[in-house]
Amino acid sequence: MALYVQKYGGTSVGSVERIEAVAEKVAGFRQQGHDIVVVVSAMSGETNRLIGLAKDIQSTPEPREMDVLVSTGEQVTIALLCMALSKRGVAARSYTGGQVKILTDSAHTKARIQDIEIDGMRDDLDAGRVIVVAGFQGVDDRGNITTLGRGGSDTTGVALAAALRADECQIYTDVDGVYTTDPRVVDTAQRLEKITFEEMLEMASLGSKVLQIRAVEFAGKYKVPLRVLSSFKDGPGTLISIEDDDTVEKPVISGIAFNRDEAKLTVLGVPDVPGVASRILGPISRENIEVDIIVQNVAADKTTDFTFTVHRNDYQAAETVLQKVAAELGAREVVGDSKIAKVSIVGVGMRSHAGVASKMFDALASESINIQMISTSEIKVSVVIAEKYLELAVRALHSAFDLDKADDVSE
Amino acid sequence: MALYVQKYGGTSVGSVERIEAVAEKVAGFRQQGHDIVVVVSAMSGETNRLIGLAKDIQSTPEPREMDVLVSTGEQVTIALLCMALSKRGVAARSYTGGQVKILTDSAHTKARIQDIEIDGMRDDLDAGRVIVVAGFQGVDDRGNITTLGRGGSDTTGVALAAALRADECQIYTDVDGVYTTDPRVVDTAQRLEKITFEEMLEMASLGSKVLQIRAVEFAGKYKVPLRVLSSFKDGPGTLISIEDDDTVEKPVISGIAFNRDEAKLTVLGVPDVPGVASRILGPISRENIEVDIIVQNVAADKTTDFTFTVHRNDYQAAETVLQKVAAELGAREVVGDSKIAKVSIVGVGMRSHAGVASKMFDALASESINIQMISTSEIKVSVVIAEKYLELAVRALHSAFDLDKADDVSE
Repeated sequence: MALYVQKYGGTSVGSVERIEAVAEKVAGFRQQGHDIVVVVSAMSGETNRLIGLAKDIQSTPEPREMDVLVSTGEQVTIALLCMALSKRGVAARSYTGGQVKILTDSAHTKARIQDIEIDGMRDDLDAGRVIVVAGFQGVDDRGNITTLGRGGSDTTGVALAAALRADECQIYTDVDGVYTTDPRVVDTAQRLEKITFEEMLEMASLGSKVLQIRAVEFAGKYKVPLRVLSSFKDGPGTLISIEDDDTVEKPVISGIAFNRDEAKLTVLGVPDVPGVASRILGPISRENIEVDIIVQNVAADKTTDFTFTVHRNDYQAAETVLQKVAAELGAREVVGDSKIAKVSIVGVGMRSHAGVASKMFDALASESINIQMISTSEIKVSVVIAEKYLELAVRALHSAFDLDKADDVSE
Repeated sequence: MALYVQKYGGTSVGSVERIEAVAEKVAGFRQQGHDIVVVVSAMSGETNRLIGLAKDIQSTPEPREMDVLVSTGEQVTIALLCMALSKRGVAARSYTGGQVKILTDSAHTKARIQDIEIDGMRDDLDAGRVIVVAGFQGVDDRGNITTLGRGGSDTTGVALAAALRADECQIYTDVDGVYTTDPRVVDTAQRLEKITFEEMLEMASLGSKVLQIRAVEFAGKYKVPLRVLSSFKDGPGTLISIEDDDTVEKPVISGIAFNRDEAKLTVLGVPDVPGVASRILGPISRENIEVDIIVQNVAADKTTDFTFTVHRNDYQAAETVLQKVAAELGAREVVGDSKIAKVSIVGVGMRSHAGVASKMFDALASESINIQMISTSEIKVSVVIAEKYLELAVRALHSAFDLDKADDVSE
């Protein structure tokens, strides 16, 4: 008998029929004797409907009132799910974030969880009741309703699992696990049985939209085993947990992540003096433009070339800022390219294996794909290439690192 | 500078445009220097939408979860109204029933208010903020969300006005006041400037749907001056307050109320022994059928006839119960009529005036309308007549009691 925290996203509770299906699933777990805490999102479409009403009134609505408004979405779902459980003879009780209570700071629309009261939930679990909690929301120390920002229901699930010391936090979604890469690009992509928090973080931040980054960070920090499963078909999903040193057959590379939403900007001929990087990136950051990869090459003539990538939507804004900065710095020229993509190989195994990067570069070279930028971390290597080569590069790497086979067979 | 509690119903906040119009109205009162507490209902249609979702799952949904569900309707409105006020430069803050907090008992879907915390609201008012409260909802002593039953937003308004000792509780609705009778039946019906709580109670319970009965009771108990006004057009509305003894020109009759949703049942030839009434009405009440007028005539042959009225929807159920009871009691026969209507004259003035009832009966007799039942109280006289005579009776009485003239001219 285990204690599971199960999170069901907006698509999984998108209609009365789907809410009934979730209730059926939860009832099954109860019959097996497990204690269940369910975290739900708003029914799909509902949050956007509410935001639409607000935007009809104010283009930038009051954040405090925005939270009061959108938090109703999850509140509707918890009530409906409890009714569907009750209909199946399963005792259940719903709680808003404020009722639990999930204490957050007062940063409306992007609050962070500070504490969770668990005594009330323990009483319910002891009484054999399923607890249904509204995801994505909490309450600050003055009783104001807060929200964790969109997708924050994953974080609610992980935080509850950590507070209750649950055996697993199970994230039910519309995919049946984490894959070695996007199956729409590589049809031999394999579902991973297991992946570490660090790998998942790299995969998530590089474009796999299965889990919210903050939820994975949170789970890693509190060592909450996280499992991604499908709401719609049975299967073990993918377990995200701490690195298991006993595993002998650890693959070097767990997956290939990619992102086509980037653009590249280069300031050519920048005087190579201290403080140049911050004089270039300071104005960019003041425009709220996020920078991803940064590369600086030292040149021989006391000037350097400074390159970085931004989200493609920010490309024009960044270029405008940069033209001004370049003139001030006495740089030669600003050039850019919005038709780029980033491809990364991710795996904790590369820590102890030399030659992973060169194998990656070889694989790309053998397909005549030119590498424009390189960035590395302990467990990933990212390259920027022309966007038109993206699919080709992903398939070549997937094959080169033996990911086409089932994931328990590694080199 | 006064403190007003203003309640806007579902139709008044039925769209973003109408919410903006309410904000405009409230902003105007602020400019005049008044302190304003606003109570709002769910946007019209929203509560029914939510109930529909619940009914799709459970025909009789869990009351606790029903309250969690439907209370989101008002929560949406408070947030949107605060945004609309903020847009106009009016500082405002929203509160759910639980946030205020409006403490109720735990009778889900029909809870009663026990206490209201006002310290937080005083702080807001002192800081010059408009307070926007979700009507119809509260929280019990264990933090469970409760609702006061449909239409309960009026009660929230009155309770807040009582707790805050407001100068007036203003109920904004889609009619511009309380009329001497339904203007759709009598086109010379007059808006009343003023009416007492007792008269309003009789008018409301007899079919005028302007205000919720419980809200009027509450206002009368705490002597909160209540004003009914239109959201859509300017005007003084109708003030409902305690009886003003200084008014010399008090009309005998304030209005004519009527109700066509009733049915009449008679048990003929009941043995005239103690306990008969409870043996007849006990089984009726156990079926949750509410009884309105009850009349018992004593007959000469040691039997009596027992008649009462019920809501027309309960007619069949009541008759079934009665057939069984009549057999047990040895009564002669059960007869009934679902084509009846009730017409009442209401006015505190009749306390000190003899002859009001006979004037009523005369007026009906002169139109050849047969009176089937009569029931009287201190400030009203009700008669049951055949439904087909309803309009004729109302018009005859309206004219007989001089209500066709402006209401400040009385006999």
